[in-house]
Formats: sequence, structure tokens, C-alpha cells
Amino acid sequence: MQKFNRNQRIMAITKILMENPNKIINLNKFTGMFNAAKSTISEDIVVVRQTLNRLSMGTIETISGAAGGIKYTCGISDEKIKEFAEELCIILQDKQRIVPGEFMYISDVMYNPQIVYKAAIVLASQFKGSKINYIVTVQTKGIPLAYEVAKILGVNLVIVRRDSKVTEGPTVSINYVSGSNRRIQTMSLSKQAINKGSKCIFIDDFMKAGGTALGIINLLREFESELVGIGVLIDNINTEKKLVDDYVSIVKFSGVDENQSPIVYPGIIK
Amino acid sequence: MQKFNRNQRIMAITKILMENPNKIINLNKFTGMFNAAKSTISEDIVVVRQTLNRLSMGTIETISGAAGGIKYTCGISDEKIKEFAEELCIILQDKQRIVPGEFMYISDVMYNPQIVYKAAIVLASQFKGSKINYIVTVQTKGIPLAYEVAKILGVNLVIVRRDSKVTEGPTVSINYVSGSNRRIQTMSLSKQAINKGSKCIFIDDFMKAGGTALGIINLLREFESELVGIGVLIDNINTEKKLVDDYVSIVKFSGVDENQSPIVYPGIIK
Repeated sequence: MQKFNRNQRIMAITKILMENPNKIINLNKFTGMFNAAKSTISEDIVVVRQTLNRLSMGTIETISGAAGGIKYTCGISDEKIKEFAEELCIILQDKQRIVPGEFMYISDVMYNPQIVYKAAIVLASQFKGSKINYIVTVQTKGIPLAYEVAKILGVNLVIVRRDSKVTEGPTVSINYVSGSNRRIQTMSLSKQAINKGSKCIFIDDFMKAGGTALGIINLLREFESELVGIGVLIDNINTEKKLVDDYVSIVKFSGVDENQSPIVYPGIIK
Repeated sequence: MQKFNRNQRIMAITKILMENPNKIINLNKFTGMFNAAKSTISEDIVVVRQTLNRLSMGTIETISGAAGGIKYTCGISDEKIKEFAEELCIILQDKQRIVPGEFMYISDVMYNPQIVYKAAIVLASQFKGSKINYIVTVQTKGIPLAYEVAKILGVNLVIVRRDSKVTEGPTVSINYVSGSNRRIQTMSLSKQAINKGSKCIFIDDFMKAGGTALGIINLLREFESELVGIGVLIDNINTEKKLVDDYVSIVKFSGVDENQSPIVYPGIIK
């Protein structure tokens, strides 16, 4: 086999790391793939690590031991977070988005992979360092965002349903009171979806009073598991009282101005 | 600013291309970012392109003209497709997955980002070259897969709902007959979700008789749009008659064996 040169190895190593965020990759994978010595691969990784650092694009951690290797973690600078939140506000400041009940039409945003990916990096960066087992969301609109956060953090996604479906097997259901309109709603989750003693982060598109988040806390208790963080894209701060207090949001929404346009501003400011 | 050397530029260019599949990136982005001449960047891109080709990991296309630049397309070799389908079959061959009605519990698979990502590359590779505007799916279990295919193909996702929700604004609903149990079901989509004259691909987790796919064809007609492809993870071939005939699947499922374990085998064979 013709050898790969440094440029080629760096390209391929970068691609493989990007595709496996927060997963430990043993160096043997690379030595085998490129037919190269471990010391050579280590030098390649130094280049990748330094460039990531220099561009604030992420970090590479070395894990020692038999099950060790390198682990890439997605990163973003505070400046880029601010820039993204501001761009998002411009997209959201459109009066045609307002739907009766101080809701916004945001499906186009939540289903745009390029926006979702950036939003997920921002949210994931708020939780990096926390040891978690799952990202939890409730159907439907927050699913792509929650999936992308799960991918970046290297864990599985859990989707709580509003109905229960034949293909889920035995499920656990709870009733909860929606914080904003006081309606009783149901959420259900397959019994085999979460292992006991898990730590989870709840990701959603929009938070009003936080009734859904509170419901998730109660549902996770049924699985002897714990909610350790909440992240949403948009936080409606025009709400009398929030039912949860510890959460992060990328954009704050505080109703409409005199032109019926949404009032939005960046939520994560450092 | 200290200059970036070739290794560093290749690392960063690779990362940016991976994050923007099927999107045209103007070379000025890179010349500005690295403070480098266009000819230097072009040489970097040659290295990235050659390495991608050599490892069957994708292609880079050059688009000329004022709005031109380079476009990365995800790729996978036939051998890797086969390998992935075989791995997936091993995961699915577990008798505990069988749920009454010849369904399988597959939420753990559909919500595992590493499996979803690989499955999405396989499905996207079947449709590359087709000019499409949206990836369409129906809630809930196929959403992560459909999202990932949309991201890889560089288009937006559209999620058809079984209910209609206040935040969606005006919607279009149709009734359709589920092919396998002959039940009448409803699907609805926000009027502003799809532009007229669009070409779409339907992605889902599981196909039984194809009633849902047929429903999507009819729903898209209401938007004067067209379904040009169907891709599913698992195709239940134990069905008397399929209501649609032109689709691709990664795994074929043909009921259970004498031990009540699922009978599955790779679906895409070249």
C-alpha cells in the first residue's frame, strides 16, 4: 500500500474525529488505517489539536490506559456564540412569525440543519464537562436540535411521546399540567428507553412557563433518573412565573412590539 | 497575524467542509480566514479531494462562476455500505425486539446518533445527483434519520404531523388509509412548510405496506409538489402488497424464525 503523507493523514484524522465527537478513538485505528507508526500519528494529532485551539473550534483530549485514545470535543468561542445569537434574532424578528397566543412559527428554523447544528454546538458547549447519559426531548419540533446536541455530546437521544405507540413496548406515562394554559397533558416513555440512575439534559425548541420541563423531571423520577440541565433555543420571558429556574437559552423572546413584530435578543451573554 | 501552514489549513478546511455538506463555499472564505493566496488554497483543496477519493469518503466538486466555489459531498464505498448493513442486522437480530403485530422495538437504534449518521450517509448516497428541495418525514421515530439525510444533502427538513398544532399556523390536512391495518389516519402540514413546485424525498424508519408513503405523495400534491424518492431503514417484506414500489431500504425484515427472533438481512446490495 502506498503510504499516506502528513497532509493526507491530517485530513482523514480530522474527518474521523468530526464524525465521532466525544467518543474515545484508539490510536490503533489510525496506525492501522495509514500503516504508520504511533509516534507519527501522535505528531499528526498535535497539529490537529493546535489548529482547533487556535481557531476556537474544539479540543482534543488524550485518555490514557488500555481503553484510552483521543477524544474530540466540539468547541465555539464566546464571540461566535454572540454572533450566532444575533443572526438568529434577525431571522426571528419577522412579524409574520407571530401566531395567536404569543407563539412563534419557527419550524423553518428548527428544521434547517445549518441553524440547528450551530444552535446545538452553542447548547452543547454549555454542558460540556457534565457527565451525562442521555439527551431527552419531547416530540416534535425540538427533536432535530436535541438529536444534534446528543451527537455532539456523544450520547443517545431519548424522545418522550405525547401518545403511546404499539412499537414502543411497555411504557411509563405521567400526567402534567402545562404551565401556561393549565391544561392537563400526558407524556409517555418506553420502559426500556432509559437505564436506572441516569443523568439527563432536556433540550427543547421553546420554553414558556416550563411545565414541560417540570413534567420531564417527574417522568425521569419514575426511571430513578435525574435531570441535570435544561437548554432551549427560545425562552419566552413574558411569563409570570417559571416553573423551573436553572436553564440556558440562546434567544429571549418578550412578546411583540407596536408593529406586532417579535421582540427578541441574545440570551447567552458572557 | 501568524500565517497558517499547509497542515493547519487542511485541517480547518476539512472541518468546514464536513460541517457544510452539499453547500457551495466560496474560496474567498478560506483566503480571508488564512490570509493566503487563492492558488495556495486551491492546492490545499487538491490534497483534501485526493484523500477523500482515496478513502472513498466523499467528493469535492468545483463550481465556476460568480456564485461558485467548492462543494463537498459525503460519500461511502459499496463495501462500507454492506459492512454497515450487516452490523445493523446483528443489532436487530434480538428476539427481545419483537413487539406484537410483527413490529420491532427500534427506538434505541433510531436514537443512536452514530448509527443514524451512518444510515443517513447510506440513504443520502442513493439519492445524490437528484436535485431535491426537501427531505420529508412523518413524526416521530424517523425524524433524526431524516434530519441527518437533509443535512448531508444540504436541504431543509419537513416534518409532517399526525395532529395539528397551534404554533404551525394554517395547515393542510389529508386522510389516508394505513396499508397494513386499514385504519384511517390523518396527516397535516403547515401551509408555509413547502414552496410550490418542490421535489422531495421521503425518509422513514420502517415501511410496512407503504400507506404512509402513499399519504405523503397525496399530501405533497396539495402543495403542488412531487415525491421523487423514498428511503427507509427497515423494510418489512412480509407484506402482501406494497402500495409504493420505488424505494430503497438498508435492511429487509421478513418476520420471525422458530425462536421468535427477527429475520433480517441487508437490503442494499450492489
